[in-house]
Amino acid sequence: KGQPIQIVEAGEHTFKLNEEALERVLLNPEIQDKKVAVVSVAGAFRKGKSFLLDFFLRYLNAKGDPDWLGDDESPLEGFSWRGGSERETTGILLWSEPFVCKTSSGEEIVVLLMDTQGAFDSESTVRDCATVFALSTMISSVQVYNITQNIQEDDLQHLQLFTEYGRLALEANDNISKPFQCLEFLVRDWSFPYEADYGAAGGRKILERRLQISDKQHNELQQLRSHIKSCFENIGCFLMPHPGLKVATNPKFDGRLKDIEPDFKDKLQILVPLLLDEDNLKIKEMNGQKITCRELVEYFKAYIKIYQGEELPEPKSMLLATAEANNLAAVSSSKSRYTKEMEKICGGDKPYLHPEQLEREHIRCLTIAMDLFDDTRKMGGKEFSSIYKEQLQKDIEEANDNFKSHNEGKNIFSSAR
Amino acid sequence: KGQPIQIVEAGEHTFKLNEEALERVLLNPEIQDKKVAVVSVAGAFRKGKSFLLDFFLRYLNAKGDPDWLGDDESPLEGFSWRGGSERETTGILLWSEPFVCKTSSGEEIVVLLMDTQGAFDSESTVRDCATVFALSTMISSVQVYNITQNIQEDDLQHLQLFTEYGRLALEANDNISKPFQCLEFLVRDWSFPYEADYGAAGGRKILERRLQISDKQHNELQQLRSHIKSCFENIGCFLMPHPGLKVATNPKFDGRLKDIEPDFKDKLQILVPLLLDEDNLKIKEMNGQKITCRELVEYFKAYIKIYQGEELPEPKSMLLATAEANNLAAVSSSKSRYTKEMEKICGGDKPYLHPEQLEREHIRCLTIAMDLFDDTRKMGGKEFSSIYKEQLQKDIEEANDNFKSHNEGKNIFSSAR
Ligand SMILES: Nc1nc2c(ncn2[C@@H]2O[C@H](COP(=O)(O)OP(=O)(O)O)[C@@H](O)[C@H]2O)c(=O)[nH]1
Ligand SMILES: Nc1nc2c(ncn2[C@@H]2O[C@H](COP(=O)(O)OP(=O)(O)O)[C@@H](O)[C@H]2O)c(=O)[nH]1
Ligand SMILES: [Mg+2]
Ligand SMILES: [Mg+2]
Repeated sequence: KGQPIQIVEAGEHTFKLNEEALERVLLNPEIQDKKVAVVSVAGAFRKGKSFLLDFFLRYLNAKGDPDWLGDDESPLEGFSWRGGSERETTGILLWSEPFVCKTSSGEEIVVLLMDTQGAFDSESTVRDCATVFALSTMISSVQVYNITQNIQEDDLQHLQLFTEYGRLALEANDNISKPFQCLEFLVRDWSFPYEADYGAAGGRKILERRLQISDKQHNELQQLRSHIKSCFENIGCFLMPHPGLKVATNPKFDGRLKDIEPDFKDKLQILVPLLLDEDNLKIKEMNGQKITCRELVEYFKAYIKIYQGEELPEPKSMLLATAEANNLAAVSSSKSRYTKEMEKICGGDKPYLHPEQLEREHIRCLTIAMDLFDDTRKMGGKEFSSIYKEQLQKDIEEANDNFKSHNEGKNIFSSAR
Repeated sequence: KGQPIQIVEAGEHTFKLNEEALERVLLNPEIQDKKVAVVSVAGAFRKGKSFLLDFFLRYLNAKGDPDWLGDDESPLEGFSWRGGSERETTGILLWSEPFVCKTSSGEEIVVLLMDTQGAFDSESTVRDCATVFALSTMISSVQVYNITQNIQEDDLQHLQLFTEYGRLALEANDNISKPFQCLEFLVRDWSFPYEADYGAAGGRKILERRLQISDKQHNELQQLRSHIKSCFENIGCFLMPHPGLKVATNPKFDGRLKDIEPDFKDKLQILVPLLLDEDNLKIKEMNGQKITCRELVEYFKAYIKIYQGEELPEPKSMLLATAEANNLAAVSSSKSRYTKEMEKICGGDKPYLHPEQLEREHIRCLTIAMDLFDDTRKMGGKEFSSIYKEQLQKDIEEANDNFKSHNEGKNIFSSAR
């Protein structure tokens, strides 16, 4: 039988592709030229992602048997899952055994399952989380975004950042097709069935509400929503009930069905075929072209390189990013203040100044600019600002050198001729 | 009896203090000169904040009766709470009836309870959420940070942004005392008692792990942790068990004790006195000085003004902030590239150029700079960038004017003499 294999390995805030392992799975002669569907599950850590994937495995292994969910007493196996508050999976995992399904049109397609490192554990940076999410979104044909209890604005904000990080890397995108294919919000422990029923219809209702755009909304909310809609060809949502407190809390729980609430099992019977039934499978496309396992390997190699490079801007936490923007804006306006003040004194139409006088004026304008910088309220505190302050000082010194040499220019002309 | 009163009203992404209502409560002659303790509960929307506050009310109303939790059949009342996925509370609420407690030293102190608008609902901007959180943190002596299931890195990132937004407004801070007093992480639906037990000791264990700083960590993680520690004099954590699926899911549940899991009630019996017992109450301090109800009114008025002004930088979502920082950095380096290239051609030590030639050189350097801007990868997309691109163009035109007039300067000298 199959097993999870680590195809993207996490180092110290870097990611490496295990090419050999990837090729062993995907360049298997029996599948390499077949079209491929890739289902990935991503989201915060410790939220039942691997647990869910193991039901996907049961379904695919059962090859159409309606009793795929299995018997009451068998432990749930496959991608490793467990209780506890610390992270388990790192990098990206692929199930070693690809499943071959025949669609109703008779074509054989390969199904890959992908498990991802959970976001927001206490060892990963924003960039780490964004990289795993972006990579898995780029590689999958269906990204299951696993969230809990509700669709909150911060869930959408994370999604926005992560997908933008993915979109940035897709240079070759033709700008006609949307960058990614299917996104499925999967809300675990949905608690308000009286408001929107469990399942896909209830999910659609909540999703529509959350992604609705109206002129009355603040611009920030509108932008967020149109960004997300512009990234995926298809967006769905499924509301899952709570699986019961035994699943959530009991350390001895090993995944056997008898310990899981019936409602949860019922909804699994709907969710899993919705994603994995032969006729519902989404073949992976790149720029509108369906691709094979062999091509997928090449894309994977290309994408990971981009994230290993230095080219992409770095996703940062809200505070860091805001603090950076605040400080950059303050540097820019302080510098421009310096230039304006100096131009008044020694601009092109102003006469030559004695170097000592010019130096005095420089000091005066420098002080104005530095004070302006200090007085501008910026996030991040003094220490964070100090680097930008140094940069400002350097920029101003450079501008001063230019002013000095322009001033000298006037002197040479006035004396040499 | 008392009732919730809206002291901060939310408008269209603005907040207004209801001074009259605030004064009616706090300038009551019986309490206005007494020291005050303010307990606030803040965090995401629909996570049991108001529900919890109503148990605080029961405790305070019982005035020391050990049976404060009440009988099995009474509905839970006070701050309005309910099921459902949409937001309920907006702005900030205060319980109209202040409680007066006598500490073991015999002093009478006033206890205020504060309920806040939940963060991350789909109508609020990041700034709205940050404002409510920051204001309630500044005003309270104990801020209960209500989160679910775990302490995740994104919970910490939000806390960091929100407290920084508060700290920024505290101009008058003496920089000796930390800006805020007590922070209590309250983890609802904690599911891993076998790893860290419910309650304060287990909470401390998890908190220590999450806030631990080590040299081996990425700088981003270290900064976050030391930021949070530097903001509060005291940080605690309490792990609450799940209250049972009836509480979470049943629309008919009205808060009566018989529908709540015994474990949850047991832990309430520990948590609530920990926060509200006379000897555990924290009196509100400002710059190390204990303050009275009357003084609190003045602080409240002063603080809300700051958030109504334009002075503070705006907290933004991760993508917006990152996109802004990326674009500002690109503007700055492109502009500086332009200046460098032009200085090579028409710097102070360079001879006079014919205006047409200068114009050609300007066009050439402008193109270099604009291409550099376009080629720099930035988040946020073309449309977002276009404003920054215009800014760059304007900055360069301005610099060009300066170059032109410096060049003309050379001409005047060379021809006039
Ligand atoms: N509350 C809740 N817990 C779940 C659910 N599904 C699985 N769990 C439990 O969540 C814990 C973490 O599961 P795991 O699959 O390892 O999470 P992952 O880190 O997201 O892959 C385990 O104790 C599971 O029993 C669910 O839908 N709701
Ligand atoms: N899962 C869970 N639900 C809770 C808890 N406490 C209260 N609730 C339920 O959460 C819902 C929202 O409660 P409410 O106090 O209005 O939330 P608020 O928006 O944060 O003030 C209600 O249906 C409560 O019954 C808890 O500790 N865990
Ligand atoms: Mg996992
Ligand atoms: Mg509430």
